[in-house]
Amino acid sequence: MNYQVPGTPPATLIAKRKPGDKPPLITLIQYDADSIFEGEFETLQDLMQRFNASMVNWINVDGLHDLELLRELGRQFHIHPLALEDVLNTTQRPKVEQYADHFFIVSEMIYEEENGRIALEQLSIFLGTSYVLTIQEESQHDVFEQVRSRLRTGRGYARKMKSDYLAYALLDATVDQFYPIIETLGESVDTIEEELLDKPSRQALRKLYEAKRLMLQLRRTAWPQREIFNTLIRDDSGLIAKETQIFLRDCYDHTAQIIDILESYRDLTAGLMDVYLSSLGFRTNEIIRVLTVVSSIFIPLTFFVGIYGMNFNTEYPWNMPELNWPFGYLLCLAVMATIAIAMIVFFKRKKWL
Amino acid sequence: MNYQVPGTPPATLIAKRKPGDKPPLITLIQYDADSIFEGEFETLQDLMQRFNASMVNWINVDGLHDLELLRELGRQFHIHPLALEDVLNTTQRPKVEQYADHFFIVSEMIYEEENGRIALEQLSIFLGTSYVLTIQEESQHDVFEQVRSRLRTGRGYARKMKSDYLAYALLDATVDQFYPIIETLGESVDTIEEELLDKPSRQALRKLYEAKRLMLQLRRTAWPQREIFNTLIRDDSGLIAKETQIFLRDCYDHTAQIIDILESYRDLTAGLMDVYLSSLGFRTNEIIRVLTVVSSIFIPLTFFVGIYGMNFNTEYPWNMPELNWPFGYLLCLAVMATIAIAMIVFFKRKKWL
Amino acid sequence: MNYQVPGTPPATLIAKRKPGDKPPLITLIQYDADSIFEGEFETLQDLMQRFNASMVNWINVDGLHDLELLRELGRQFHIHPLALEDVLNTTQRPKVEQYADHFFIVSEMIYEEENGRIALEQLSIFLGTSYVLTIQEESQHDVFEQVRSRLRTGRGYARKMKSDYLAYALLDATVDQFYPIIETLGESVDTIEEELLDKPSRQALRKLYEAKRLMLQLRRTAWPQREIFNTLIRDDSGLIAKETQIFLRDCYDHTAQIIDILESYRDLTAGLMDVYLSSLGFRTNEIIRVLTVVSSIFIPLTFFVGIYGMNFNTEYPWNMPELNWPFGYLLCLAVMATIAIAMIVFFKRKKWL
Amino acid sequence: MNYQVPGTPPATLIAKRKPGDKPPLITLIQYDADSIFEGEFETLQDLMQRFNASMVNWINVDGLHDLELLRELGRQFHIHPLALEDVLNTTQRPKVEQYADHFFIVSEMIYEEENGRIALEQLSIFLGTSYVLTIQEESQHDVFEQVRSRLRTGRGYARKMKSDYLAYALLDATVDQFYPIIETLGESVDTIEEELLDKPSRQALRKLYEAKRLMLQLRRTAWPQREIFNTLIRDDSGLIAKETQIFLRDCYDHTAQIIDILESYRDLTAGLMDVYLSSLGFRTNEIIRVLTVVSSIFIPLTFFVGIYGMNFNTEYPWNMPELNWPFGYLLCLAVMATIAIAMIVFFKRKKWL
Amino acid sequence: MNYQVPGTPPATLIAKRKPGDKPPLITLIQYDADSIFEGEFETLQDLMQRFNASMVNWINVDGLHDLELLRELGRQFHIHPLALEDVLNTTQRPKVEQYADHFFIVSEMIYEEENGRIALEQLSIFLGTSYVLTIQEESQHDVFEQVRSRLRTGRGYARKMKSDYLAYALLDATVDQFYPIIETLGESVDTIEEELLDKPSRQALRKLYEAKRLMLQLRRTAWPQREIFNTLIRDDSGLIAKETQIFLRDCYDHTAQIIDILESYRDLTAGLMDVYLSSLGFRTNEIIRVLTVVSSIFIPLTFFVGIYGMNFNTEYPWNMPELNWPFGYLLCLAVMATIAIAMIVFFKRKKWL
Repeated sequence: MNYQVPGTPPATLIAKRKPGDKPPLITLIQYDADSIFEGEFETLQDLMQRFNASMVNWINVDGLHDLELLRELGRQFHIHPLALEDVLNTTQRPKVEQYADHFFIVSEMIYEEENGRIALEQLSIFLGTSYVLTIQEESQHDVFEQVRSRLRTGRGYARKMKSDYLAYALLDATVDQFYPIIETLGESVDTIEEELLDKPSRQALRKLYEAKRLMLQLRRTAWPQREIFNTLIRDDSGLIAKETQIFLRDCYDHTAQIIDILESYRDLTAGLMDVYLSSLGFRTNEIIRVLTVVSSIFIPLTFFVGIYGMNFNTEYPWNMPELNWPFGYLLCLAVMATIAIAMIVFFKRKKWL
Repeated sequence: MNYQVPGTPPATLIAKRKPGDKPPLITLIQYDADSIFEGEFETLQDLMQRFNASMVNWINVDGLHDLELLRELGRQFHIHPLALEDVLNTTQRPKVEQYADHFFIVSEMIYEEENGRIALEQLSIFLGTSYVLTIQEESQHDVFEQVRSRLRTGRGYARKMKSDYLAYALLDATVDQFYPIIETLGESVDTIEEELLDKPSRQALRKLYEAKRLMLQLRRTAWPQREIFNTLIRDDSGLIAKETQIFLRDCYDHTAQIIDILESYRDLTAGLMDVYLSSLGFRTNEIIRVLTVVSSIFIPLTFFVGIYGMNFNTEYPWNMPELNWPFGYLLCLAVMATIAIAMIVFFKRKKWL
Repeated sequence: MNYQVPGTPPATLIAKRKPGDKPPLITLIQYDADSIFEGEFETLQDLMQRFNASMVNWINVDGLHDLELLRELGRQFHIHPLALEDVLNTTQRPKVEQYADHFFIVSEMIYEEENGRIALEQLSIFLGTSYVLTIQEESQHDVFEQVRSRLRTGRGYARKMKSDYLAYALLDATVDQFYPIIETLGESVDTIEEELLDKPSRQALRKLYEAKRLMLQLRRTAWPQREIFNTLIRDDSGLIAKETQIFLRDCYDHTAQIIDILESYRDLTAGLMDVYLSSLGFRTNEIIRVLTVVSSIFIPLTFFVGIYGMNFNTEYPWNMPELNWPFGYLLCLAVMATIAIAMIVFFKRKKWL
Repeated sequence: MNYQVPGTPPATLIAKRKPGDKPPLITLIQYDADSIFEGEFETLQDLMQRFNASMVNWINVDGLHDLELLRELGRQFHIHPLALEDVLNTTQRPKVEQYADHFFIVSEMIYEEENGRIALEQLSIFLGTSYVLTIQEESQHDVFEQVRSRLRTGRGYARKMKSDYLAYALLDATVDQFYPIIETLGESVDTIEEELLDKPSRQALRKLYEAKRLMLQLRRTAWPQREIFNTLIRDDSGLIAKETQIFLRDCYDHTAQIIDILESYRDLTAGLMDVYLSSLGFRTNEIIRVLTVVSSIFIPLTFFVGIYGMNFNTEYPWNMPELNWPFGYLLCLAVMATIAIAMIVFFKRKKWL
Repeated sequence: MNYQVPGTPPATLIAKRKPGDKPPLITLIQYDADSIFEGEFETLQDLMQRFNASMVNWINVDGLHDLELLRELGRQFHIHPLALEDVLNTTQRPKVEQYADHFFIVSEMIYEEENGRIALEQLSIFLGTSYVLTIQEESQHDVFEQVRSRLRTGRGYARKMKSDYLAYALLDATVDQFYPIIETLGESVDTIEEELLDKPSRQALRKLYEAKRLMLQLRRTAWPQREIFNTLIRDDSGLIAKETQIFLRDCYDHTAQIIDILESYRDLTAGLMDVYLSSLGFRTNEIIRVLTVVSSIFIPLTFFVGIYGMNFNTEYPWNMPELNWPFGYLLCLAVMATIAIAMIVFFKRKKWL
């Protein structure tokens, strides 16, 4: 978890430094229907000289460790100190806040890292009339490559529309990332299901628990995401065009669908835990049945043969006269066979055999 | 699952092709109170020449793989690109969206396939003043045959009313499909219940789990279906006549009833899982009781007879003098009988026998 | 379940025929504060001649198999075809619908049949200014005898008030039926509870499950019943007098109380299932403890006596010299006693004994 | 349960008689800021002569078996017949109803009886401008003694304020009764918790179940109590002064707190049931481990010594030549020790020992 | 629990005395943008002489045992007697109440005591235009040290703003305390998880149960905390400046996040209980498998060797002639090996070995 030490004054900015941090990367993509410019800048001043309020300016910052840069961004775009604090405090819930001349949106990018782990990276978006400012935690992963390439080629609507549409496109890209992860999750639930119904093992249980954990994490991100779209759809500040709101409604539907699927996976995995428990109970029952049948047949018989292994002095007529009967052994075998058969019949009736 | 690759531009149309796709089938049923025309067309242009805005035109398209056709439909009926995308993206939740001059309704047809599997097929409905445009995933199954035959014969209200009533009739047909499936489900829950209460087996458990899965799927479809009717009933755009809304209220009641039944099945199956677990526990308990009773009686006795099977040299007076007693054997039997009876009394008291 | 074949046109009437159906019974009770008339009629026409709009007319029809009669009722009282369909489709949820000049109320009569089974029978009520039309599924059972006798004797308010009060009195009679059934249910839950806490058996489990099933059924009926009263209390169409609404508020309280009791029974039975499971686990634990104690004491001892039952040639000095010791047997007994006592102390410490 | 026979006309009064009922006790406490009068009356007429509308009149009736008295109260204070019926029907949910010139409040007094059982007694309150009429089920228990003594001594606000404050004081007294009972409940949950975590027993399970039952009962009373205060706080009929509403808000907070505590107890007891089950499972596991270790070591050894107890004729060289080896016995012991040690190592590795 | 004896008059003040109570500490911090004064006072009178309505006056009282002081505070700041009662009744739920000229806020400070226990201490805040009055239960712990030091140094916004901001800063400090505690909780859940998945033990179960208990406690505090912020954000009385409300919105987000985390921990621990149960079941199953395999192989064999240990007189030709066969012993071993191998094959097939 990532939280400020209790007692820190509100709106205090604390840099998030990791070993080997390079200076944050500042990039600008500036476009209108006719032209597009792309560039990287060392400092915000350089970038602001290029800023053109009559075009759409997408300023992207990767990395949260340069406080001075963040403070400058705050001054340039009239960002409230608490919003800046939220940018740095990377365990925010996704949310949208409206300020005088811009929206502040906190969202989560979700992606699979090289090692197969699902990572969440906070994405802060400031949406003004002529700009979109995005701040990411780090520079290696990013889910916007296709948005950029669409802007470059001019495919789709993007170039013809305003900054609100760009913000939508970015949010849409983060939502789309859920699908492959949910699909993988669904497949792994299916696999676990097969395993649990066939042969309950501890590995399957662990996998099930991990799937559950991931689901919890996705749910915690997806629910407030939906609220973001719900708020933006109903916005009447004029910053979001009616036309864009139709697109945002589509995003809302997507998150609703994602939540739906996650909820039904949740019900399924809860059911699977029950299946595992009963499957285990069933196997234990089966094993014990074998033990009981074998023991109940042979333990009495062993006792029986033990009797005739006793060494009482058979010279006295009352001491085990059976041992000296000519057909004692055969009789003894017959009695034992009878006991065994009676037992088997008893177990057959109980359906334990 | 069926989702677009993340990063695809919004409103991109991607054809859903399967091997052996024939060109999509376009059919038109055109009617008013007096006359009815039915025809199949190769291209949309041919069909549009026949289109008559003063009658009700039901255009049905089977198959989603001809993008050009879809785009043409979009142009002809002013369909928003996102709506067209939703038509192709067949894992949509049922929903209704209002556009300037039409409603866009996504619903699900549910039916049993030849192999007994329950299939869901997405049905997209565009409802305008003089037309209903339906787009289905494939051409083999369809739940509208009876609607068509009612239109042909002029039975019922259908021919006397407008396109809104036709849309209602189609939605009503999809809702009606739930009933036989739910009934089958209910019967299978009853069967499983009998099995589980009588003799818990793994097959019953698996069947229970599958019933649960199907229920989850039906619930996920039924809940948003109800919302569709709720929205249409409250519509005041004028596209849906007051008279039709009374009929839609009936559909609303039906979905509410379906949800009710599904919820109570859900509670029942949850209870059945508990019944299975306790039934299993009860059987294990019973089996272990037999094992314990048999073992506890015979294991001590076996030890006892083992003693007198020892080969100590009885020439020494303190070495097993019992073996040389004249009634040693009888005494030994008497002691064993006493032990056995004491054990049995103990178990009787504990009610284990 | 009782549903129409999918594809049936909306508002189609399908008679519910059972072998041995007699023509439906039509009765009229007509009254005002001063006089009362009661009669049975063969046809609706005969009855309508006697209809008097300045009195309260209670028309009751028993049996749903005469479609012609229903259609005639529809014409006489302006009943919407969908409402007529609902009358026949006897798995409706309780509901109330408002039409131009009457209310259509679907309720459920609940009663214990001769064989002890709880039966639900659908009751359809049409409430107009001067009439109450009730349609029941069959003619044998009915919960209104006391309402009739109150009308006859003029006891209570009934005769002084309008048709809305009569409808209230009928609904009140159906709600009152819940109480004895719920009381029986509560008593049977108490019995099961005693059984489960004392001696868990499979019969008790089955009874518990059946009680649960009945509860589910009652809940499914009671919840929408409450909604009926909620709607009628808030009605401002003028059909329901303010004075009657005070009485309906009382009915609302009753259904709320019934739901309350059912919910707490539900929590109780859920708790009982847990009690059963733990009770079972406790017994298994106890049984296994006995098995373990007995086995752990005697199995090692049996092994010990087995050693001295071996037949090694004792002429060699290293082969079981113990057998030829003068006090070998006593030593052997002493060793075994020590082992046994050690075991018992161990089990005492573990509190297994 | 206490319900009227189905079919009883609405608003029928049925006396609740118990053997040995004395005539109900009618007491009047009449006060204003300056003076207070207290008296017992045989009949309502006597009391009404003393009634003084310019003071606060608290009329209290203990016992529900004198119908005539109730009817007279009804006439004197314009009580609706249904409200009178509710007074008698003592399984009402707590509720508040507003009539033309008074409030009718049904609440529950909760107290511990001499035998330690928690009892609920219905309290009906009619609150008019100049009077508070309270009707209790019986005359032995009552939670108002301290309210009376405060009125007598003139301590606190009571004497300076109107009848609405008196009603508040009475309701506050009933709410305060929850606290000691909840505290006892909390302590008993703590005790059960200690017992279950240490040594799961059946007594603890039964106590847990009973605590759960009591909680359910308290919840069923506390929730609607809160609604009473919620309604009274928002009343704008003028019967409840703004100043009193501040006091009622305090009562509302108290019930909210009570519900809070009950809900968290509920979660705790649910958790305890799980703890009990796992604790049981853990003990069973432990016991079985001992059984398995002992049996697995000694059963094979017993078989081994059994071999050399066989009586094959050793004159043939292939029949158990081991018996005639000089060191046969020692070898045999060595083999057995090896087997035993191997087993112990195996169990150590599995961590079962 | 801390509640008043039932029947205590409303708004009665009862001092909370503990042995060794010192007179409560009264401190004043008085500041505006330019200057700051800090002082301790023996009596309220002394303090009130220093009170300056044009600055922000933060009066802090530690300890609840001096009733006279509380009554004087009540008189000075027009505090309602019920509010004073709430200050003393330290099991209040967090809440906010609006009075004519001030807000009364009950919150909880949460901190870890020296012994590692999590303690809750009630904090009562009265917020007027020019003052903030805080009353704490005791004087040892306090979470405001950093707020004081920020006031002293003039860092942050605090000195430039009004009393509403001070109240915010205090509430923010209490909320911030949740984070380290939740983090510790999260870490301990992770540890328990590892333990339970690896080797289920009773200690882990107890720890899990205690974590659950702490979570319940935190939830019960966090939910109403959120409501406090919700109420203050929407306040339009003018006491809370728009600017401060932005800061309060931040607090609201924090509590929402805390609740979110607590809810997901709750789901996780519920899942862990299931994991524990199944892990236990799995181990039991494994142990029983070993028992069954060993017993099922050796018990029949022991019976078999027992047969040839019987002492039937072999002089009769039908009494155990096998004993006198030249290869009887080898045959016997062969038969036993066959039985053992058959058993092993059977268990291999069942996958129990």
